[in-house]
Amino acid sequence: MAATELPDEAAQLLAERAVSAMYERDVASGALGLRILEVRADFIRAAMSVRADMVNGHDLCHRGLIFTFADSAFAFCCNSHNVVTVGGSASIDFIAPARKGDELVALAKMISRTRRSGICDVVVSNQRGETIAKFRGRSAGEQGTVAQEQ
Amino acid sequence: MAATELPDEAAQLLAERAVSAMYERDVASGALGLRILEVRADFIRAAMSVRADMVNGHDLCHRGLIFTFADSAFAFCCNSHNVVTVGGSASIDFIAPARKGDELVALAKMISRTRRSGICDVVVSNQRGETIAKFRGRSAGEQGTVAQEQ
Amino acid sequence: MAATELPDEAAQLLAERAVSAMYERDVASGALGLRILEVRADFIRAAMSVRADMVNGHDLCHRGLIFTFADSAFAFCCNSHNVVTVGGSASIDFIAPARKGDELVALAKMISRTRRSGICDVVVSNQRGETIAKFRGRSAGEQGTVAQEQ
Amino acid sequence: MAATELPDEAAQLLAERAVSAMYERDVASGALGLRILEVRADFIRAAMSVRADMVNGHDLCHRGLIFTFADSAFAFCCNSHNVVTVGGSASIDFIAPARKGDELVALAKMISRTRRSGICDVVVSNQRGETIAKFRGRSAGEQGTVAQEQ
Repeated sequence: MAATELPDEAAQLLAERAVSAMYERDVASGALGLRILEVRADFIRAAMSVRADMVNGHDLCHRGLIFTFADSAFAFCCNSHNVVTVGGSASIDFIAPARKGDELVALAKMISRTRRSGICDVVVSNQRGETIAKFRGRSAGEQGTVAQEQ
Repeated sequence: MAATELPDEAAQLLAERAVSAMYERDVASGALGLRILEVRADFIRAAMSVRADMVNGHDLCHRGLIFTFADSAFAFCCNSHNVVTVGGSASIDFIAPARKGDELVALAKMISRTRRSGICDVVVSNQRGETIAKFRGRSAGEQGTVAQEQ
Repeated sequence: MAATELPDEAAQLLAERAVSAMYERDVASGALGLRILEVRADFIRAAMSVRADMVNGHDLCHRGLIFTFADSAFAFCCNSHNVVTVGGSASIDFIAPARKGDELVALAKMISRTRRSGICDVVVSNQRGETIAKFRGRSAGEQGTVAQEQ
Repeated sequence: MAATELPDEAAQLLAERAVSAMYERDVASGALGLRILEVRADFIRAAMSVRADMVNGHDLCHRGLIFTFADSAFAFCCNSHNVVTVGGSASIDFIAPARKGDELVALAKMISRTRRSGICDVVVSNQRGETIAKFRGRSAGEQGTVAQEQ
């Protein structure tokens, strides 16, 4: 049953359970220090601090890590219905650099969802509200569930 | 003077010097274990092994690391003319998963270059020649040089 | 002088003059029946009706025309500072079909602008407010002006 | 039965039949003067002349028409297995302008195909072999067939 057909409260519980189950297994998100601040069906807010080991010689955060942060928020958002998405594509525009010590926030929202695919926009901004990057992810298919049925 | 106007040998020396200078400073590429196999003007071939600390619970390489590998090859390729590129955008299609122990190769080629911007295609494949991901990067501007003038 | 440095009223006048000058010369926008509903610096709202000659055998609007509509709104938006942008790239996600008789609206907003490049988001929706397509355009460079200096 | 499982000759016949059936119905391709030069499973070569009614005041072909040309080649290529694809996304990089009188060729190749989705690269070049645009299309789903079963 899709979460969109669930009563709001059940959808919210499912989203929290699915994201929590996924987070526990996601070694990369843990290594990035990604924290999940808010979970709703089709919506995730997450945070990441730019540590010294995430920057290059000019104290700028590596682009790959900004992508990884946004891509993780996208994955959590896709899976807020307890469905594992696979494959897919993503595009990212790097708008301003992130620097050592910055506190980044990613807002991920599904903008389209069908049985087979979904599109999700993620905006990464810093502690001053400046946009660092805009990411658009597309999931190509679905298989399996994240949290176990109870 | 742009490398494209240089005699071939000089362009090749410049490409090697610029990429080498950039590689030494690039902590992220070092952390990934990225090795540069071949350098030419507007062309890079690089390798990366998928280590145990790069995979999730299912032994699949994190998408963020595949992006980072491709993005690094893109940056080296852009800078093979000793010009630092900034900003820009990228898109990536994840075609097949990479697994623990896979030996990935990235082939990066500039497909367009003007004074202001460049477009670079990167194909990531595994040891069996299967395509893992296709990446297209766009640099938005240029400033400064990588290797110091001699 | 960039419009962002102009007083609001002057920026507004410049935007109207530049977009008007561009619209008069743009044969394609005329052929599509594109109407400009609102002009501000870095913002355009435009409309297009899906005519019988814009659809295929199933009364669905051709994707190329939806792209062209969004791309025109992007071009007007880029040029709201009276600077002609050239080259660039675009991506589009087709979310729902547009049908014969639909009244489409495109909202174009610059989300980033530097001296050398700009990024613009365009959302195309129908008369019921449903999203038809999301477009992101990137201009690669600038040369010349649209409206003549007075 | 997927064309990839068919003997070569049967796959070729199916590709020709499906593309031919689609071409007959495609009003937009007809209006563009698109000609199909070569059909194979997962491969299309098509041509388009840049007519006077396709250019702006500077004799440059409208970007929307270049997109439409590439998108049509993509659609024919996706459908070379007699499966109608729907939805999806596309990105395009405009590399050099096309001018009035140019004879454009689009080469479309599927670079990935699963049961649910496909990725197709299209290169548009002119009569001198110069690259005009690079297009990447992604189909999001499949439903129905193009040519009727016999």
